[in-house]
Amino acid sequence: MSSDPLVVFTPSGKRGHFPVGTPILTAARQLGVDLDSVCGGRGICSKCQITPSYGEFPKHGVTVRDGALSEWNAVEQRYQDKRGLKEGRRLGCQATVQGDVVIDVPPESQVHRQVVRKAATNRTITMDPATHLFYVAVEEPDMHEPTGDLERLQRALKAQWGIGEVTADLSLLAKLQPTLRKGAWKVTVALHKGHNDTSHRIIEIWPGYSEERIYGLAIDLGSTTIAAHLCDLRNGDVKASSGLMNPQIRFGEDLMSRVSYSMMNPGGDREMTAAVRDAINDLTRSIAAEGGIEPRQIVETVFVCNPVMHHLLLGLDPVELGQAPFALATSDSLSLPAREMGLDAMNPRAQVYILPCIAGHVGADCAAVALSEEPGKSEDLVLIVDVGTNAEILLGNVTRVLACSSPTGPAFEGAQISSGQRAAPGAIERIEIDPVTKEPRFRVIGSDKWSDEDGFETDIATTGITGICGSGIIEAVAEMRMAGLLDESGLIGSAEQTGTARCVPEGRTHSYLLHDASETGGPRITVTQGDIRAIQLAKSALYAGARLLMDEMGVDRVDRIVLAGAFGAHISTKHAMVLGMIPDAPLDKVTSAGNAAGTGARIALSNIGARAEIERVVREITKVETAIEPKFQDHFVAANAIPHKTDPFPDLYSVVTLPKVSFNTGGGDDDGSGRRRRRRA
Amino acid sequence: MSSDPLVVFTPSGKRGHFPVGTPILTAARQLGVDLDSVCGGRGICSKCQITPSYGEFPKHGVTVRDGALSEWNAVEQRYQDKRGLKEGRRLGCQATVQGDVVIDVPPESQVHRQVVRKAATNRTITMDPATHLFYVAVEEPDMHEPTGDLERLQRALKAQWGIGEVTADLSLLAKLQPTLRKGAWKVTVALHKGHNDTSHRIIEIWPGYSEERIYGLAIDLGSTTIAAHLCDLRNGDVKASSGLMNPQIRFGEDLMSRVSYSMMNPGGDREMTAAVRDAINDLTRSIAAEGGIEPRQIVETVFVCNPVMHHLLLGLDPVELGQAPFALATSDSLSLPAREMGLDAMNPRAQVYILPCIAGHVGADCAAVALSEEPGKSEDLVLIVDVGTNAEILLGNVTRVLACSSPTGPAFEGAQISSGQRAAPGAIERIEIDPVTKEPRFRVIGSDKWSDEDGFETDIATTGITGICGSGIIEAVAEMRMAGLLDESGLIGSAEQTGTARCVPEGRTHSYLLHDASETGGPRITVTQGDIRAIQLAKSALYAGARLLMDEMGVDRVDRIVLAGAFGAHISTKHAMVLGMIPDAPLDKVTSAGNAAGTGARIALSNIGARAEIERVVREITKVETAIEPKFQDHFVAANAIPHKTDPFPDLYSVVTLPKVSFNTGGGDDDGSGRRRRRRA
Repeated sequence: MSSDPLVVFTPSGKRGHFPVGTPILTAARQLGVDLDSVCGGRGICSKCQITPSYGEFPKHGVTVRDGALSEWNAVEQRYQDKRGLKEGRRLGCQATVQGDVVIDVPPESQVHRQVVRKAATNRTITMDPATHLFYVAVEEPDMHEPTGDLERLQRALKAQWGIGEVTADLSLLAKLQPTLRKGAWKVTVALHKGHNDTSHRIIEIWPGYSEERIYGLAIDLGSTTIAAHLCDLRNGDVKASSGLMNPQIRFGEDLMSRVSYSMMNPGGDREMTAAVRDAINDLTRSIAAEGGIEPRQIVETVFVCNPVMHHLLLGLDPVELGQAPFALATSDSLSLPAREMGLDAMNPRAQVYILPCIAGHVGADCAAVALSEEPGKSEDLVLIVDVGTNAEILLGNVTRVLACSSPTGPAFEGAQISSGQRAAPGAIERIEIDPVTKEPRFRVIGSDKWSDEDGFETDIATTGITGICGSGIIEAVAEMRMAGLLDESGLIGSAEQTGTARCVPEGRTHSYLLHDASETGGPRITVTQGDIRAIQLAKSALYAGARLLMDEMGVDRVDRIVLAGAFGAHISTKHAMVLGMIPDAPLDKVTSAGNAAGTGARIALSNIGARAEIERVVREITKVETAIEPKFQDHFVAANAIPHKTDPFPDLYSVVTLPKVSFNTGGGDDDGSGRRRRRRA
Repeated sequence: MSSDPLVVFTPSGKRGHFPVGTPILTAARQLGVDLDSVCGGRGICSKCQITPSYGEFPKHGVTVRDGALSEWNAVEQRYQDKRGLKEGRRLGCQATVQGDVVIDVPPESQVHRQVVRKAATNRTITMDPATHLFYVAVEEPDMHEPTGDLERLQRALKAQWGIGEVTADLSLLAKLQPTLRKGAWKVTVALHKGHNDTSHRIIEIWPGYSEERIYGLAIDLGSTTIAAHLCDLRNGDVKASSGLMNPQIRFGEDLMSRVSYSMMNPGGDREMTAAVRDAINDLTRSIAAEGGIEPRQIVETVFVCNPVMHHLLLGLDPVELGQAPFALATSDSLSLPAREMGLDAMNPRAQVYILPCIAGHVGADCAAVALSEEPGKSEDLVLIVDVGTNAEILLGNVTRVLACSSPTGPAFEGAQISSGQRAAPGAIERIEIDPVTKEPRFRVIGSDKWSDEDGFETDIATTGITGICGSGIIEAVAEMRMAGLLDESGLIGSAEQTGTARCVPEGRTHSYLLHDASETGGPRITVTQGDIRAIQLAKSALYAGARLLMDEMGVDRVDRIVLAGAFGAHISTKHAMVLGMIPDAPLDKVTSAGNAAGTGARIALSNIGARAEIERVVREITKVETAIEPKFQDHFVAANAIPHKTDPFPDLYSVVTLPKVSFNTGGGDDDGSGRRRRRRA
C-alpha cells in the first residue's frame, strides 16, 4: 500500500495514490480521468475546474479532511478576482494534493461530455470533435539555431501536447508571424485532426490565450430544402438552426429532372453547383448572424445529402447517376478544405467532411440516418424510412442491414399538390373528417386550436388559411378514406355517392372541398383527384421500397418502424398507415426520429470516432437497387390501393375500420390502376 | 541446380533461372532488374524493349541458341507493324523464356536511367521523379456491388501496380467519369508520390494508353533574374531553358530594399507576390511554347530561391527577414499544389516542391547548391561561392559543412555600374589591358573575336558595343590593377600618374576610358571611381563571408574553390582572385560549377530521393549569421583593398605581379577606407 494520499475522482470512480503536491490535473491525466484543459495547466483557461468534497465517504473508504487540497495560490486567486469561480470550485491545475481527497469533475469540465439529443430516442452524443483548441508557448527565434516560426510552433505542440504531424496552409502561414509576436510567443491554435490518420492541420491561430469559441455546421442538403445546425464544438450546444429552399429547384423539382437538365444543357451542372454553393454561403452568413457569431468562427462543416446533391455540391456532373449502372464518381467519405468547394463564407481554412455514399441512389443522407438510428445495433428488426423528395429506406438488425432509396417525388412536401404549400404559418397541418357528417375540421400552423374551436379565427387572423402542407395532405387523404369519401382504388366519390355537397365535380372527376374563403377573396382549398394520384404514386414508391428490402431479408413483417425526415416528425403514424405508406405494424411500434439525417450530420460533427464508425458500417450495408429490380414494379402497382391491394394490414384493421366503398362506375380513363411515370426525386 | 533456363541481364549482371514461358518482364521484375513498363505488360507502351544476344558467353558461362526466346506473338507483331521496333529488339512483356538467354536492357528501357549533367563535374542524375505514368484497366461499375469510379481506380492501382493511398482532388474527380468511359475503362494516370510518405496524388488522367509526355520545371528564382529549365520527366532531357528579369526589381533592386518596400507600404508584400507569380505564369507559358509542349503537360515544379524571394513567392510578408533575429515563417521544405500559390499556367493539379531554407539569410538556393555540389561528400575542404545579388557561401568537407550568405549587392550583375548592363549581345565580357601601353582590348558578347582582330567590327555591326556585363567589370577592374592604373586601395590614377590619356578626370576622381563611340553617336564606356567602389563593396562582402566560415572552421586556407551562379560560370578565376573576391588558392583548384542552384533544382525535380537527402543535409549544416558577427565587419574592411590589405595571397602572387602603386595624394574624401552601407541583396 502506498502511503501517498488517495485521490478518488467522481463520477468516473477512478482512483490512485499521488505524492503530496501533485496538481489535481496531473493526477487526472495519469488516471485517464476526462478533465479538460486548453492552456495546458497554466491557470489561464479555467477549463479544468473541479469540486473537492469533504467528510466521510464510506463508499470510497475515505475521509476527506479540511486541508486535503493546497491553499489557494496566486494564480487561482487572480483567476477568482478577475473572473470568479463558482462556489466550491477549484482550478485543477493549481490545487495540489495534500491528503486523501474526493474530486468531482462537473460535466462542463469534461472534454468528452455527453449531449442528450432532443429527440424521442434520447440518444446521447459524446463530444469529441475533430477540431480542438490548444494554448501553447512557442520558443522565440534564435539566430544561432535558425528555424522557422512554424517549425517552432510544431515543436511546441509536440512537447506540450504530444501532437505530431502538424501542417499549415499558406493562408495560415501568412498570419503566423504577426500572431506569434502579438501574443508574445504564446498562442491559441485550433487544430483539426484527421479521423483516419494522425495528421493535424492548423485551422486558426489567435494571439495569447483566446476565449474565442469555435463552431461547426451540420448541413442536411436535400433536394428541396437545405437545413443547417450551428453547433458549439466545445459542448455541442446548438446555437442556431436554419434552413432555406434549395435554389436548384429552378432547374428541376426532383433529382432526375436536375440530372436531365445537366444532360440537356452543356454547363448545366456547373450552374447548379454554383447555385447550391451560393445558397450554402448565404446560409452560413445568416446562421452565423442568427447565432450571434462571426462566420469565421465556423471551422468545420459536415454534409449529408443524396448522391445527386453530393455530386452537384462537389462540382461533379451527375449524368452517370441518371442511367444504369448509376456509377458514383466517388463513394467514400471526403475530407477537404471548404475553400476547395467554393465555400468561402466560413473560416478560410474550415474543413468539410462528407459522409460516404452507400450506392448510386443511396446517399450520404442515408448513411447519416444509419449513424443516427443504428439499425445494426437493434435486436428488433427495424424499418427506417426517411421521407423526403427521395426516400431513403433502411431495414435491419444486429445480423444484417439493407438499404435502398425510392423515388417518392415531392408530393409529400406539398409540391405537385393543387393546394400544396411548405409547412409555414397558414398551412393546414392536421385534419379530421366526421365519418357521419363528412364535415372537416382542421388545424393550421400558427394556432393550436382546431378550426371549430373558439378563438381559432383570432389566432389565424394575420396568416389566414393558405394551403395544405405535406403532413396535412397525408391526413386529408387518410381521413377521406376513413370517412368513405375515397375508395380503395383512390377514386373520390361524387356528392351523390358520398352524400356530401363537399364532393364537387371537377371535369370528369371529383374534389373534396376542405375550406372555402373565396367569398372573402381567400383561397378555395380542395383535395383533387390529381392530388390523390400524386400521393398514391409517392406512397406506393415508399411502400414498394420497404417491401423490396423485406423480400431481400426474407420477412413479411417488421418489429418496428421509424419515420425519419424533417417531415416524418409531423406525420400522424395512424394516417400514414391508413394511407399504406408503410407496412402494417402495431401503431405503438411506429415512432418518429425527427430529422435523423440531420442528427447523423450532427453526430459526425461532434464525434470524430463516429466518422470512422459510419465508414465501416456503410461498407457492411447490403445495397439494393430499386431501379432495376422487377419486383419493385410489382410491389409498386400492388401498393397503389389505399392502404394496399393484397397485403392484409391486420394491426391497422384492429384499430380502424375502412368503409368498403367503390366509386368506379366503369367509365373514364382514370381507373386507379397505378400506371406510373418512373421518376427519381 | 535448377533445370529451368538461365536468364542473364546486362548491364546489371543479374541472373536467375525461370520456367519456360516466363515473360522477360516478369523475370526482370523478380530479379529487381531496372526494366521500364507503363502499361503493366500489356504490349502497349513498348517501354520494356530488350535486346536478346545469341552465341557463346564465356563470361556468363552460357550459350544462347536460336529459339532461346519465344517466336513473335500477335501483340508483338501488331506493335511492330504499327510502330516498328529497332532491329534486334523485342518487347520484354511478350517475349518468353524458352532456353538460356542473355538479355540486354538498353538505357532507354531503364526507369532509373542516368543523365549526365552537362557541367564540368560531369555529375550524373538518376531519373526517379516524383511523378510517373501508369496504365491501368479499371473494373466497370456494378449496380449490385456499388462503388465509386475513384474507388475502383484506386483498387486497380493497388492490384496492378501495388500502389496504395491514392487521392484525387475535386478537379480530377470532375474529369474521372468521362475519361474512364472514353478509354473503355482503361486509362493512363500521372501519379505524384510524396517523398516523405507513401501517399500518391492523381495529377492527370488520359483515356486509354497515352503517349503524352509529362514535364517538370526547375526554377531558380533570383533577386534579379528568374531562370527555368523545362525537363522531360521520363528521361531528364532539358527541352528548353529560359529566363526573365524578376519584375520585383521595380520595388527595389536588392532584397533589403524590397523588405523595406513591404515595411513602408501596406500591402506592398502582396504587390510583390502578385508580380513574381505573374512572371512565373508568363515564364511557364513561354518556356512551354519554346519546348513545343502544352503548359498543362507541366505537372511538377521545383523552386530554389533565397529566403526573401521564398516568402514573397509564398505570399508571406518578408518583414521579419529584415531585422534580427531574421525569423523565417517556415524553414522546412514545402510540397503543395501550384494552384495554392496562384501558379495557374501549368497543369491545374501540378505540384510544387520548394527546397528547405537553411537560415533567415541562407535560402533554398544555397540548399540547392549543397545538393548539386555536395560539399559534405568532399574529402578536400571546398569553398563554394554562389555569386549573385546575394552570395551564398558554403565551406566544408566530409566532417562538417558551414553556410552563410553575404550581401554583395547587384554590382556583379552589372547593376550600380555606370556602364553596366545585363550579359546580352553588345556587352563587353572580356578585357585585357596592355601593362606597357595601358591600351585595352576586349571581347563583346555575340563575337568570338577580340576588338583588335580583323572582322570584329563586322561581327558587332548589328549589336554595337553597349556596355559592360558582370564578368566584364570584374576583368576590367582586375586588369586595371594589374596594369598599374588602380592602386591597392582602389583609387584610379590620373593621366599623369599612370601615363595614359585614357585616365580622364571626372570631378575629383578619375575614370578609365575603355571605349569611345561618342563621335558616331555611340556610348562612351568608362570604368569610373564609383564603379570601383561598388565592386569593392561587393567583393569585400563576398570575401568576408568566406573568411567568416574559414574562422568558424578554424582554417586559413581552403583546398579548392567552386564558383557557382549563372554569372560564376563566366568569371575568369584569375581575375576574380586578383580582385580578391575569393581567398587565395592554386588557380587550377578554382573551378566553375555553372548555375549550381539551378542544377540542384533539376536534381530535386529528377530524383525524389534527393529531396529527402537535401532535407537531411540542411539539418546538419552549421549556419553562420554574417549580420550579427562582429568579425564580419573586420573582414569586410580588410578585404576592401585589392586584392587584400593583410592576407598574403601567395598562390596568386606566384602567377601574377601587381604593381606597387599608390595614387592617394592625401586629399579628397574618397579614401577607400571602405565605409559601407549595410545592405542585403
